[in-house]
Amino acid sequence: MTTIFQHVAIVGIGLIGSSIARAIRSQSLAKRVTALEISPVAREAASRLAIADLVTDDPAQAIVGADLVIVCTPIGTYSAVGQALRGNLKQGAILSDVGSVKQAAIRDLGPLVPEHVHFIPGHPVAGTEHSGPEAGFAELFQGRWAILTPVPGTDPKALASLHSLWTAMGSMVEVMEPGHHDQVLAITSHLPHLIAYTIVGTATHLEEATKSEVIKFSASGFRDFTRIAASNPVMWRDVFLNNREAVLEMLGRFNEDLTALQRAIRWGEADKLEEWFTRTRDIRRSIIDAKQA
Amino acid sequence: MTTIFQHVAIVGIGLIGSSIARAIRSQSLAKRVTALEISPVAREAASRLAIADLVTDDPAQAIVGADLVIVCTPIGTYSAVGQALRGNLKQGAILSDVGSVKQAAIRDLGPLVPEHVHFIPGHPVAGTEHSGPEAGFAELFQGRWAILTPVPGTDPKALASLHSLWTAMGSMVEVMEPGHHDQVLAITSHLPHLIAYTIVGTATHLEEATKSEVIKFSASGFRDFTRIAASNPVMWRDVFLNNREAVLEMLGRFNEDLTALQRAIRWGEADKLEEWFTRTRDIRRSIIDAKQA
Repeated sequence: MTTIFQHVAIVGIGLIGSSIARAIRSQSLAKRVTALEISPVAREAASRLAIADLVTDDPAQAIVGADLVIVCTPIGTYSAVGQALRGNLKQGAILSDVGSVKQAAIRDLGPLVPEHVHFIPGHPVAGTEHSGPEAGFAELFQGRWAILTPVPGTDPKALASLHSLWTAMGSMVEVMEPGHHDQVLAITSHLPHLIAYTIVGTATHLEEATKSEVIKFSASGFRDFTRIAASNPVMWRDVFLNNREAVLEMLGRFNEDLTALQRAIRWGEADKLEEWFTRTRDIRRSIIDAKQA
Repeated sequence: MTTIFQHVAIVGIGLIGSSIARAIRSQSLAKRVTALEISPVAREAASRLAIADLVTDDPAQAIVGADLVIVCTPIGTYSAVGQALRGNLKQGAILSDVGSVKQAAIRDLGPLVPEHVHFIPGHPVAGTEHSGPEAGFAELFQGRWAILTPVPGTDPKALASLHSLWTAMGSMVEVMEPGHHDQVLAITSHLPHLIAYTIVGTATHLEEATKSEVIKFSASGFRDFTRIAASNPVMWRDVFLNNREAVLEMLGRFNEDLTALQRAIRWGEADKLEEWFTRTRDIRRSIIDAKQA
């Protein structure tokens, strides 16, 4: 692989940040990888695992000289991160991120980006239910989509470089309008997580005896929800708070449908249930056909 | 393995029925396995795959002489199945089933069981999203729970034989009160399936352009729901209609919790969301500790 960047700086060395660092270093996609991390625990782990050339809590040390800076912290931190970065970004540098809500990234980070820096928001549609630097791995992005949501007037050369990096890390790249991204992810990702968090929480409120049986017999469907509901709590708190309109809109539609099915169960509307459950099979087939299963 | 039964008859040779037949034959747990199946398509597939010694739509041919008969059809068929079987069950035979709702099995099948037959309802907590005889495999029950819900006065020797069969097929066996089974499964299995069916249905109602992107980016959470929502529509229709009270009760709790989270998102209650999302992580750890992950 060819070197695409001289120096990549990762802000926040958790699951995604450490996976990017590992992917870049495993293929020598940059000559130098530095990490800015405020958590002493995560810093210690990242240093011990030698994920980056330098892991520090000093923005100047991590950022100055970088030609690509990727923000990998929860969306709620973006204003503070922007303040810490702005004085340290070099002329012509690219600033990107991996946050799950793109309009919020543009709203919070955008105004803090200096004129001489190319700001290109991004979102790799990849992850696991695990968190922290130890959870990352170089292959996380292989065969997964990476969505870039450039604002109008973005420098095509900068966009092409970032595109190349994601492609080199194994991703398929899609360019999308930020608001549309937030709508699509609200149904494919945010609502599924909210529902999984809800039902697992509902189970935790059951009496102790039943709860232990819920764990015992979880393989019957519940288990898949617990995996999703084990995802990073702070990251997901920020996703819901920052994609509120789209999430509430999709949740409204979901609630209408759930109420209709609830009513069909109560009144014994067999045909309605069977018709609904047959239709949902088709989407599964489309996902298998699209090789996303 | 020792032969446990002389002749096992399977009623309904779909995913579960064909897996039982395969498991029994792969370990010679019975000398003869017959299958009663009313669908010509399933009959043809089961015959072609040589899953049983005989596959027929004639109850007398399939059932007469069997010392164990296992009903593996959707719960809505139990009255009709009971009518077809009752005249063909031999003295001292065991009649069992694999349905997901045990009180309904006892209600619909119980009254049709002759005095000279041991009726022991059962439920293997195992399955996949696939249906039909081709989808079955001998290892389906390995390491999975099989729940037996004997009615009071059940012959201990008959119970022990059925227990041995499930253990030989690789299951861990749990004996449970039928009503309690239906409560536990309502939260671990029925509600998760209902919710998965709902959200996948919600997605199918989106405009075409968005729908194709939902498929494209389904790996971000939605995909796991589509797998669950690809399960057998008729079987699940019957589960919801026949465990109505328990499902509606759990759905009521879920709805209260979902409304609370919806409100927290609308009003930006960050702490409440984070606290909830942190608590749900613990259940995942318990499931991993219980080796059910």
